[in-house]
Amino acid sequence: MLNRVRSAVAHLVSSGGAPPPRPKSPDLPNAPSAQTAAPPEAPRSPPARAGSSAPAKTVEARASFSRPTFLQLSPGGLRRADDHAGRAVQSPPDTGRRLPWSTGYAEVINAGKSRHNEDQACCEVVYVEGRRSVSGAPREPSQGQGLCFYYWGLFDGHAGGGAAEMASRLLHRHIREQLKDLVEILQDPSPPPLCLPSTPGAPGSSDASHLVGPQSCWSSQKEVTHESLVVGAIENAFQFMDEQMARERRGHQVEGGCCALVVVYLLGKVYVANAGDSRAIIVRNGEIIPMSREFTPETERQRLQLLGFLKPELLGGEFTHLEFPRRIQPKELGQRMLYRDQNMTGWAYKKIELEDLRFPLVCGEGKKARVMATIGVTRGLGDHNLKVCSSTLPIKPFLSCFPEVRVYDLTQYEHCPDDVLVLGTDGLWDVTSDCEVAATVDRVLSAYEPNDASRYTALAQALVLGARGTPRDRGWRLPNNKLGSGDDISVFVIPLGGPGSYS
Amino acid sequence: MLNRVRSAVAHLVSSGGAPPPRPKSPDLPNAPSAQTAAPPEAPRSPPARAGSSAPAKTVEARASFSRPTFLQLSPGGLRRADDHAGRAVQSPPDTGRRLPWSTGYAEVINAGKSRHNEDQACCEVVYVEGRRSVSGAPREPSQGQGLCFYYWGLFDGHAGGGAAEMASRLLHRHIREQLKDLVEILQDPSPPPLCLPSTPGAPGSSDASHLVGPQSCWSSQKEVTHESLVVGAIENAFQFMDEQMARERRGHQVEGGCCALVVVYLLGKVYVANAGDSRAIIVRNGEIIPMSREFTPETERQRLQLLGFLKPELLGGEFTHLEFPRRIQPKELGQRMLYRDQNMTGWAYKKIELEDLRFPLVCGEGKKARVMATIGVTRGLGDHNLKVCSSTLPIKPFLSCFPEVRVYDLTQYEHCPDDVLVLGTDGLWDVTSDCEVAATVDRVLSAYEPNDASRYTALAQALVLGARGTPRDRGWRLPNNKLGSGDDISVFVIPLGGPGSYS
Repeated sequence: MLNRVRSAVAHLVSSGGAPPPRPKSPDLPNAPSAQTAAPPEAPRSPPARAGSSAPAKTVEARASFSRPTFLQLSPGGLRRADDHAGRAVQSPPDTGRRLPWSTGYAEVINAGKSRHNEDQACCEVVYVEGRRSVSGAPREPSQGQGLCFYYWGLFDGHAGGGAAEMASRLLHRHIREQLKDLVEILQDPSPPPLCLPSTPGAPGSSDASHLVGPQSCWSSQKEVTHESLVVGAIENAFQFMDEQMARERRGHQVEGGCCALVVVYLLGKVYVANAGDSRAIIVRNGEIIPMSREFTPETERQRLQLLGFLKPELLGGEFTHLEFPRRIQPKELGQRMLYRDQNMTGWAYKKIELEDLRFPLVCGEGKKARVMATIGVTRGLGDHNLKVCSSTLPIKPFLSCFPEVRVYDLTQYEHCPDDVLVLGTDGLWDVTSDCEVAATVDRVLSAYEPNDASRYTALAQALVLGARGTPRDRGWRLPNNKLGSGDDISVFVIPLGGPGSYS
Repeated sequence: MLNRVRSAVAHLVSSGGAPPPRPKSPDLPNAPSAQTAAPPEAPRSPPARAGSSAPAKTVEARASFSRPTFLQLSPGGLRRADDHAGRAVQSPPDTGRRLPWSTGYAEVINAGKSRHNEDQACCEVVYVEGRRSVSGAPREPSQGQGLCFYYWGLFDGHAGGGAAEMASRLLHRHIREQLKDLVEILQDPSPPPLCLPSTPGAPGSSDASHLVGPQSCWSSQKEVTHESLVVGAIENAFQFMDEQMARERRGHQVEGGCCALVVVYLLGKVYVANAGDSRAIIVRNGEIIPMSREFTPETERQRLQLLGFLKPELLGGEFTHLEFPRRIQPKELGQRMLYRDQNMTGWAYKKIELEDLRFPLVCGEGKKARVMATIGVTRGLGDHNLKVCSSTLPIKPFLSCFPEVRVYDLTQYEHCPDDVLVLGTDGLWDVTSDCEVAATVDRVLSAYEPNDASRYTALAQALVLGARGTPRDRGWRLPNNKLGSGDDISVFVIPLGGPGSYS
C-alpha cells in the first residue's frame, strides 16, 4: 500500500532490521486442513506477552517476510519474490495442486516503497463443525453434517507486514468460529429462530407467541434471512480479528494495519466483504458488476467528521472536524473561507476563527487524501499503535474494522467458464480501470481452451503485469508510457462456474 | 403524515382547540413579491415571546388552518378543503394566474387522522440581490444583476401543522439569504474563490500562492464547483430554518415538525432537496429518474444507532442502541437473541443481558418503523418539543434537519412537454408506485394538447385522486379494492421545459 501511511512507522512499537528469509511455516495451515486447526484464540499464534522484552528484530523477522504458502516458494524463490529490482510475478507452481475452483493468483512486490511485500493472500476450504444443536443439546457425532465454505482473502498491509500476515493466517478461522453456531440453522430451510436457549435442554423461545408489548411498531417480528446471518458472522469475524490484534499488539506481534478483502462461498452464495481500498468486480459475459466499494478519507468524510464532532476529545486540540479546500494561513483570520461540516455535501463560506487554523481531520484528494494527515484508508484491521506524526494522538478511533458485505447468488445465473470474480489490491486498481480489467479478461481467456484450468492463473498474471509495466525511462512504465504501479500488486481470479466445475 | 408520531402530541407545548377558519393572510408573500420581503429573521413572523402567556388556542388558530395562498381559497372554500368526509381535491383556480412554469398542483385532506390538513406547499419566484461584491466593496445599485430562482416546496407536517406552515412561509427566504453572498460568484464562469475578504476593500486571498504547509496532502487545493455552492446554500438554509423554529418554539409559535421536499431551479440546474419521506421523481420519455430517497428509522438505522452508541446519555437509560427482531421478554434473560449494532447490516446471536430488555432505539418495519417508539421519519424541520411517550426524553437529537440534495442539469437533455418532475408527500407514495405514477403521467398528458397549460394541474389531480380513491365499503378504496391513502396527499407536477416554455 504505497505511501498510505505517512511517517507513521516511527511511531510504531516495532520497526525491524533485516530479517532472514522465513521458511514455509508449518503452523500456517493449508487447505483443507483448517478444520483440524485450533480456534483462533488458542496459542497457535504465540500468546501475548505483556511487557515482553523480546527484541523487535525477532518480531519483524517473524512477521514480514512470508509469502502465501500456496506459492510453495523455496528459500531461493522467496528471495526472488523479495527483489524490488526484478519485480518477478509470482504464481502457484503449475506442477502443484491447484487452488480450489482452479482459482488464478499472481502477485508482485513493490518498486521499493517498503522493504518487503506487505500484501498477503489466503485461499482455503474450511470445514465448520456445529458447536451445538439448535435445541441446545450437545451434538451427537452422528447428528447432521457440518458446513464447508470456500474462502479467498487479500490483505494489503501498511506501516509493516504484521497485521496482513496475521489476518491471512487467522481471519477465516474467526469466520469459522462465528459460523459454528449456525451450522444447523443454515441447513434448515425454515426461517432462523430469533432466540436460542442458552442451556442444553432449555425450552426454545422462537415462536411468535412470545411477542409482547402493546406497541404497534412491535406488532410483528422482523424476518431475518439465512443470508443476513452469514453477513453478520463475517462482520463479527472482522471485529474479533481486530480485537485479537489489539490484544496481541502488546506482545509486539502485530505491526501496522491492513485492508482486508475476503470472499466466502457458502451454500450457493458468494459473500464479498471489503474493509479498505482493495476492490472486487465480477466480469460476467463482458458485463462489469461492482462487488465492493473503497473506504477512504474521501468516501468516509462525513462519518469521520461526525465522529470528530461528537467526540472532540479524539481530535486532541490538534485537528478540526471541518473540511477546508486548502490550508488556512494565520493571516487569513477573520476572512471567509469555504468549508464543509459533517452534515454537508456542498460548500459554504464561513468566517475564519482561531480554531479553524488547526489541521483538518480530513484533507487532500484522491490517493493523497488523509485522515489526520497520516493514513489514506479508513477501514481495515490493526493500526492499534498508529499515532499522528509527531504526536501521541491515536488514529485508530477513526478507523473502522467493519467490512461492507455484498452478496451474489451464484444459482441465479448460469455461468460460463469466462465469468470471473476478480479481486485486487489497490496496486492493480490505481492504474487499471474496471473496463481495462474486463478487456484483459476477454483477451486472455479467449486465448485458452475453456477447460484449461491454467487460464485463470494466466489471467491473474496478465493483470499484475499490466499494472506493473516494464522498466523503462527510470521507472516502471505501461505501454502508454504512463507510470505503472510501484505498489505491491496482488490479484485473485475466481471462476464462477462454482465448486467442482473446474477443479 | 399518517400516524407518524405516536401519542406524542400530548407532550407538545401547544394543543389547540377548534380554531376559526383563517383568511388568506396578507403576510404570506405570493410570487414574485418575495424579493421585497424582509429577511427571515425579521419580525414578519412574530418575535419569540419567552414566557408568553398567550393562550395555546390562539397559537393553534394561527398555525393550523391555512392552505397555500396560491389556492386562493375563499372562507367557504377553506371550509370545504377542511372537510374530512368529502375530501375534495383542491387545485389553483383555472381563472387565476398560473403557477410558474404552468406547474400543476393538487391536494386533499386526510380521512380524519388529524383535524386539519398538515401538509403545506409553496411555489415562488424569488429574486436574490447580492449582499456585496466579491471584492468586499459595497455594491453599487448599477453593479451587476441579481439572481432569480424558481422554488417549489412540499412540507408534510406531523404532531401539528405549525412547523409545516412556518417552513412554507420562510424556507425559501432562508435560501435567498444564503445565496446573497453568491450572486456574483455564481454568475462568474471562473472557479469560485476559496477565500473572501472580510472587510470592504481588504485584499482577496483566493490565489494559489497562499498555499502553505509541507504536507503533500495539501499540495493542491480542492476544486469547488458553483453547483456545490448552491447545494451548500440549500443545506445551510435548512439548518437556519430549523434553528429559527427552535428559537420561536419558546413563544409557542411552532408546533410539531415537518418533512421538507424542495426544488430550486437556478442557472440551468434543478436542485431537489429532501429531508423526510416525501419523494421526487422525474418522468422523462417514460423513464423514471429517482430524485430523492426517504429518510426513515429503517434507512437511517445505522446513523441512529451510532449516535446512541457514542452518546448513550441521549438514550436516558430507557433505550438500547441495539436492534432486535422482536421485543425481548424478561424471562428470556440469558438466552441468545438475534441483534444488530451500529456497524452491522447482518444479524448475529448474542446472550441477552439486563440492559437488552430496554426498548430498542429503532424498532418496527415499513410504515410502522419508529425511533424511540415515537416517530417514523428521521429528517425534517421542527420537532424541538417532541418527547418520548410518557417520558421527558427528547427525540430531536436523533433527527437531522439536513436534506440530501440531488442535482439535475436541465440543459443536458432536450425536454418535451411530457417530461415532468413529480413531487409528492407520502400520502401519494404509500399507495402509488413510481411506475404507476409514470403510467398516469402518460395517460393524462396524452389526453391533452401539448400546449394546453392546464394539463399539469389535471395530472396532479389525477395522481391525488388515484391515491385517495373513492368512498366504498367503510373506507376510501382504490379501483383494486385496496385501501386508498387516508393521509394528507399533496402533489406538484413541474414540467421540465424550463422557465418560460409553458408559462
